[in-house]
Amino acid sequence: MEPVLADSVRLTDDGVLILDRRQFPFEREWVLCKTVEEVAKAIEDMVTQSSGPYFAVLYGMVLKARTLEHLPFDQARAQLQQTATMLENTRRTNNALRKATAVVLEAVDAERDVTEALNGAKTGDHRYRDKSRKLGEHTANLLPERATVLTHCWADLYLTETVKAAQQQGKKLKFYCTETRPYLQGARLTAETLIEMGVDTTLITDGMGAAVLQSGEIDALVTAADRVTMDGHVVNKVGTLGLAVAAHAFGVPFHAQVQAPDHKAPTTEHVEIEYRDGAEVLQVLGRPSATPRAKGLYPAFDVTPPRFVTDVVTDRGVFNAGELDKYYEGEQR
Amino acid sequence: MEPVLADSVRLTDDGVLILDRRQFPFEREWVLCKTVEEVAKAIEDMVTQSSGPYFAVLYGMVLKARTLEHLPFDQARAQLQQTATMLENTRRTNNALRKATAVVLEAVDAERDVTEALNGAKTGDHRYRDKSRKLGEHTANLLPERATVLTHCWADLYLTETVKAAQQQGKKLKFYCTETRPYLQGARLTAETLIEMGVDTTLITDGMGAAVLQSGEIDALVTAADRVTMDGHVVNKVGTLGLAVAAHAFGVPFHAQVQAPDHKAPTTEHVEIEYRDGAEVLQVLGRPSATPRAKGLYPAFDVTPPRFVTDVVTDRGVFNAGELDKYYEGEQR
Repeated sequence: MEPVLADSVRLTDDGVLILDRRQFPFEREWVLCKTVEEVAKAIEDMVTQSSGPYFAVLYGMVLKARTLEHLPFDQARAQLQQTATMLENTRRTNNALRKATAVVLEAVDAERDVTEALNGAKTGDHRYRDKSRKLGEHTANLLPERATVLTHCWADLYLTETVKAAQQQGKKLKFYCTETRPYLQGARLTAETLIEMGVDTTLITDGMGAAVLQSGEIDALVTAADRVTMDGHVVNKVGTLGLAVAAHAFGVPFHAQVQAPDHKAPTTEHVEIEYRDGAEVLQVLGRPSATPRAKGLYPAFDVTPPRFVTDVVTDRGVFNAGELDKYYEGEQR
Repeated sequence: MEPVLADSVRLTDDGVLILDRRQFPFEREWVLCKTVEEVAKAIEDMVTQSSGPYFAVLYGMVLKARTLEHLPFDQARAQLQQTATMLENTRRTNNALRKATAVVLEAVDAERDVTEALNGAKTGDHRYRDKSRKLGEHTANLLPERATVLTHCWADLYLTETVKAAQQQGKKLKFYCTETRPYLQGARLTAETLIEMGVDTTLITDGMGAAVLQSGEIDALVTAADRVTMDGHVVNKVGTLGLAVAAHAFGVPFHAQVQAPDHKAPTTEHVEIEYRDGAEVLQVLGRPSATPRAKGLYPAFDVTPPRFVTDVVTDRGVFNAGELDKYYEGEQR
């Protein structure tokens, strides 16, 4: 069964329709963004996250292109470039956004025609799903026949494709997922989606991961990565680092999933970590959960050094964190 | 300034008055327990926790003793023993409860008089505060002049005495505290109390500890321990293990505070880990925070092996986790 979150950013005649992940699964509300500015705001406001913003940027670019059809190409192209930059800046650690704008602009440039934005977006959509499927298959290959997996946050299509592939391989899956404060992506998105897919799912708080890894019950820690640097640092939702360190301490492999290592980021110096409003740490789903007198700190991501990463699973297969150059071997860049 | 939580379990003529920590600091509501059964229920329901149950057990024993004064001693003593067992079973990982019943029964037995329960309870109260003060001083001695400390959950008097001692030594303190899901003791009790005491306090989620430890900003991880086994395993609020492993990985010392290692627990085999209702992981302050279709797991404690513990700070000083026998050296047991 295809879980609802696997198709939760859609282009329509009226705009881009985005399932609001902030209240999911308590409420299933779709937000219609009629302009690219509304798409950008939806991304910034976390209406969608994980791979959602990638699709939102693809289709946001199409919305903008629709408004430019009457203009001379060079003028339209310049405006589309501004839109691309604006969209890329909505979540600055997320490298996928730059890929989304690039695939659309490439199609437009090839024909010198902004109406080609739609084809570019479709190409980007298919490419992302295809890579996720391959990456999911490679990950499933790493799991034993009866696999108990710990995951963190919400790995979106990487997760759903991994589960699908493992199920097709006849593997019996059990998942533990962390709730992932402050936004509770694990408690809401991951847990709900795994259950939709028929997986035995147990929820734990973010502090319980080490104890579960110590218990001997976990076969693998599997998370997505927002970015992986060429020297093997895994940038992902804050909390990943602690789980990776504990997995390493207790002999559990950590498989980090990313479509491709980021050849524009040789080291972590080239990755900007996004700090979100610390006030978000003081509340849960909009309701106070801490003394109002405290200040909060909210680094949205953390960086796991390669010594704590067993391997990086990409669409092209599984690589040691120390040999990510191999991903691009033989390729013109 | 004495923070309110440092004196939040009080014996009155009408019963035991307990500050409800479940809603603190949003509401400051005191629960009056008129019988020892009500005290036991309050402990089970987490109205108070950390060192709160120790004081509640001391004074719960006094409540019971008040009802037995008309009975022959042996009969009264037998009933008081039953009450002790009942109270000890309210939180089975917490060794302090057995100490609380023991100090009361000792006073009663010395005079063969149940009215001596009050003196026993007072002795236990003074002894606990005195040991906490000494332990706080030893901990403060370990901190640098300008110290940034990460703590987890709510270390109660160990925390307040450490802060007091460090402040008296003229040290400049800064604290990071984890929110400590599911009960949010860090976000509510620790953060509020540190701020009451004038400490610069930053709240993080439970998943952020490793990133903060990696940052280089933390001088020490300091937590209480519910129990420490004689072979150096630290049993404390779930989440401690992950922080200890990360502290070890990033070269930050972990000081575990306990009044005394538990000579009745040579190894972890002798410690029962309490599992609470998994449904508590699916909510925050009574409100759903997860898909209702998930099941939750809630081990209340985790066990940190000695290789991740820098030292154990007791009322008698600082010991390596591998030499806890020294605590009892020269003592008749």
